[in-house]
Amino acid sequence: MSRPGQHHSKFGFDAPMPLSDHRDFAAALPFSSEVVERAMDRLLPSADDPEGRLYEAMRYAALGGGKRLRAFFVLAGATLFSVGYVSAARVAAAVEFVHAYSLIHDDLPAMDDDDLRRGQPSCHRKFDEATAILAGDALQALAFEVLAHPDTHGDPAVRVQLVAALAQAIGPHGMVGGQMLDMIAEERSLSIDEITRLQRLKTGALIAFSCSAGAILGKASEPARVSLAAYAQNVGLAFQIADDLLDVESTSEALGKTAGKDAAQGKATFVSLLGLERARDQASRLADQAALHLDSFGPRADLLKQAARFVVDRRA
Amino acid sequence: MSRPGQHHSKFGFDAPMPLSDHRDFAAALPFSSEVVERAMDRLLPSADDPEGRLYEAMRYAALGGGKRLRAFFVLAGATLFSVGYVSAARVAAAVEFVHAYSLIHDDLPAMDDDDLRRGQPSCHRKFDEATAILAGDALQALAFEVLAHPDTHGDPAVRVQLVAALAQAIGPHGMVGGQMLDMIAEERSLSIDEITRLQRLKTGALIAFSCSAGAILGKASEPARVSLAAYAQNVGLAFQIADDLLDVESTSEALGKTAGKDAAQGKATFVSLLGLERARDQASRLADQAALHLDSFGPRADLLKQAARFVVDRRA
Repeated sequence: MSRPGQHHSKFGFDAPMPLSDHRDFAAALPFSSEVVERAMDRLLPSADDPEGRLYEAMRYAALGGGKRLRAFFVLAGATLFSVGYVSAARVAAAVEFVHAYSLIHDDLPAMDDDDLRRGQPSCHRKFDEATAILAGDALQALAFEVLAHPDTHGDPAVRVQLVAALAQAIGPHGMVGGQMLDMIAEERSLSIDEITRLQRLKTGALIAFSCSAGAILGKASEPARVSLAAYAQNVGLAFQIADDLLDVESTSEALGKTAGKDAAQGKATFVSLLGLERARDQASRLADQAALHLDSFGPRADLLKQAARFVVDRRA
Repeated sequence: MSRPGQHHSKFGFDAPMPLSDHRDFAAALPFSSEVVERAMDRLLPSADDPEGRLYEAMRYAALGGGKRLRAFFVLAGATLFSVGYVSAARVAAAVEFVHAYSLIHDDLPAMDDDDLRRGQPSCHRKFDEATAILAGDALQALAFEVLAHPDTHGDPAVRVQLVAALAQAIGPHGMVGGQMLDMIAEERSLSIDEITRLQRLKTGALIAFSCSAGAILGKASEPARVSLAAYAQNVGLAFQIADDLLDVESTSEALGKTAGKDAAQGKATFVSLLGLERARDQASRLADQAALHLDSFGPRADLLKQAARFVVDRRA
């Protein structure tokens, strides 16, 4: 029943991730979105307990759509190292749980105070503030529970490495530190160095974890890990510059969240500091550089290369 | 330099926890508090980064005093299985980080809206709401980062077991689920079964983890784990009944937090449902039962037995 390089889960044989059947990013992205949403649905709590409102809020926020770009990075990275389907899907789900938690807390009245997320009422508008805070808290814990569970990988050393890497990526020196800087940016103008730090922490660190998770799962060599980390750093920054551009150039309807917020709040962004044209150039150059870091993987890395381009060309 | 049963950390030799030198709980509690606060101080971030306000808020909330009863349970449990000093202190610190995070979020305006914690302004009063939410989020991530780090235990299988157990204890089916029930209790009266569930989740689950962590670190036998889990369940419930009694019988000054809140909010508690006298009897009986579960450990478990009595007799 088993093949070399695959580990066993309690669901039986862990087949390789069929994402590698796709040559085209436009088809691979919805495929990976489906994979991760199925995994998330299975991993999220749903029971008729008295505290069931918490579970509903978690499901509402986590399953409410989105591009699932972080999940794609996990799955595409996993295909480079022949990681099994169940392993990759569970780690992708954990990453999307963290992403959903961060969006719930970002949208709170005390933070960005946003009523709209993915075209729907944000979690605290749909439920209430207390429920939203708790749903975010619970999604963070769930992410670590999923990573630590034996189904995620047969080797405990791999699982604990995933936990350590995720915890660093989203803790005080990662995502949460970046969100703190984002709050400080409402009080005073940040320098370009500070904005770069903000984005490296706030969005870059989780994207970097997503890109590197497959290498951890597949026990990849150090050079392979370094290449992926370099790719991730460029893609993460490109992603954020593109986000700033969209905040200026797109509409709330297209984005599914409030557009024009940065300017309205007088926040310094890459666009306000560099201007539209230089920001666009910079994002494009970063996407090209990202792709170059993957050359050593050959054609197997085509999907990730296309993803780097998508990140800067997307319209939402 | 090394002794059998001890693992090495990057700090060198990991000596056994000298808590076992103490025969008397009254002396052991401040000793364990000192041990854990030293560890927390070392593990908390502090740097002159632009997002330094986050680190200040984490330190303020985590190092702001408290009985450190959960840390005591970790350290006292660890002495039963000859667990090393560094291992036990790090896990105790992780537990206190989680406890601090839960208090920060509980005190938020959208939750219990409390201005006072441990006799000081609560975190969102000292800083601001956004910073408090983020400090809680970061403390949760830091707890997992500490557990997953090689310094906590040389065996990755032990570390990942700690992560899995903590994540379950504080997630949707643990602490956060209990906090959700506590919010629901402000809207409708809960039954005695629901109150018991609330407390088992909200405070019981983390106390249970604290009592069991030493058994995980020491790779204890299944019967030893079962005994400790039974002890923890009784102590956790006794603790909460005692808390409800203190809310009625003590003052804000003695508690360092707002007294009389449950009655003011019309919340059902063990005291409102059972009456003062039966609640007191019940707590005392639970403490006795807790101690009985530890008989198989002999005199080594004396400190934990005394702790069960302290939990119901304390005045704050």
